[in-house]
Amino acid sequence: MSVRPLDASAADAGLLSFDGLRAQLRGVGEERYHHQHPFHLMMHEGRLNRGQLQAWALNRYYYQSIIPIKDSIILSRGLDPAFRRAWRKRVVDHDGDAHSDGGIKRWLKLAEATGLDAEQVRAGTGTLPATRFAVNEYLNIVRSRSLLEAVASSLTELFSRDLISLRMEKMRQHYPWLSGGLDYFEARLTQAPEDAKFAINYVYENAKTRAEQELAIQALRDKCDILWAQLDALYFAYVQPGWPPPGAFLIEGA
Amino acid sequence: MSVRPLDASAADAGLLSFDGLRAQLRGVGEERYHHQHPFHLMMHEGRLNRGQLQAWALNRYYYQSIIPIKDSIILSRGLDPAFRRAWRKRVVDHDGDAHSDGGIKRWLKLAEATGLDAEQVRAGTGTLPATRFAVNEYLNIVRSRSLLEAVASSLTELFSRDLISLRMEKMRQHYPWLSGGLDYFEARLTQAPEDAKFAINYVYENAKTRAEQELAIQALRDKCDILWAQLDALYFAYVQPGWPPPGAFLIEGA
Repeated sequence: MSVRPLDASAADAGLLSFDGLRAQLRGVGEERYHHQHPFHLMMHEGRLNRGQLQAWALNRYYYQSIIPIKDSIILSRGLDPAFRRAWRKRVVDHDGDAHSDGGIKRWLKLAEATGLDAEQVRAGTGTLPATRFAVNEYLNIVRSRSLLEAVASSLTELFSRDLISLRMEKMRQHYPWLSGGLDYFEARLTQAPEDAKFAINYVYENAKTRAEQELAIQALRDKCDILWAQLDALYFAYVQPGWPPPGAFLIEGA
Repeated sequence: MSVRPLDASAADAGLLSFDGLRAQLRGVGEERYHHQHPFHLMMHEGRLNRGQLQAWALNRYYYQSIIPIKDSIILSRGLDPAFRRAWRKRVVDHDGDAHSDGGIKRWLKLAEATGLDAEQVRAGTGTLPATRFAVNEYLNIVRSRSLLEAVASSLTELFSRDLISLRMEKMRQHYPWLSGGLDYFEARLTQAPEDAKFAINYVYENAKTRAEQELAIQALRDKCDILWAQLDALYFAYVQPGWPPPGAFLIEGA
């Protein structure tokens, strides 16, 4: 991040307050977070079939699998041991430890509940190229932008608790055969808000000018686009018009 | 590339001959190159409207604009001055020199022929996120894989001459108002086959084991997926179901 004069906030009258910054970030979520995406709306209305849920579980596994890699890149860029100690939690949450399976294994359990084989999911055969491209862009962002922007790109966690609560309720209602696979979401109900709180405080404290605040907001916008594009790709391949690209997962009997 | 014993080709009985390698590469093109994509089929049948052609020109501009960056990364990884001298031609072809505009300017001319403003196209406002993600993956490939694979990923040029010839004919027939904007394609009719010849020879000479040949073939497959995903994103946003994601280019009157 850039070097600044000590009186930067006084000099930069446009600097947003904490509440002002949070309101801008929430505005991005309302406009672009994937809770509004038609694929999710169909999921929550019980209008996805088993094959479509399999395609979703398979493709989103690729996203889940890179999250701790993304967080390890951020770890590697944090110069402050206290920051790294706090951020390390995220790698543990996803990779697990002696006491807990971690999010990746929990996602595999969900994929198995849809009827997929865990080893096939782990191998990633049939994952849509567009999924990989969108997810890899998340790695590009945390590698190539400032640490401030890398942290800010995680702030979709500000919105995920509400979406996950709704999803769990709707899945139990419409796809009761999936109920045994919801541990991933259960864990995220507490993990995501903790992580979001740390990240928004970090962004507020480390964005010293309005221009830096705007970069942080843009990073969140770009992250929302990454999530949205993953659902676009699923919808296009498996709902309408229903054309998976060469080599992608095919729904049985479709 | 990996260190190999001097008798690698004798030890590796599975090594493909030049003709065998070329046949495998052509097989990848038949299966995955974007000449088969429904968006291109519609284009060639005259079934795209002006707004859809604008969306195509705008989005593909992002691809065109990174090609000389991609080639500069490859230049930066070539240890042999003779290789760099040969490869440099590509950067000149796209960025231009004292004698020639170069491919990027020619693409802007095509975009203008569709009715777009060149400055807006250059700014990239409204480009689909999925276009950026797919195109950025091309940069990821040439940065993070071996030089052999980076070179092999350019081999879609083996197939582009036929597609461009057909496209020019069909554009003149169905969209005569675009005829003044076809200089980009005219230039590629000779550039692409020259480039493909150099690259396939390079791949044949530098892939010393069957395993390396397979990596080169996979790089071409991945590159085809990058091109295919760009057209999927266009089709999805602007043909059917016709949902551009938040913030993307909107067709006037659509």
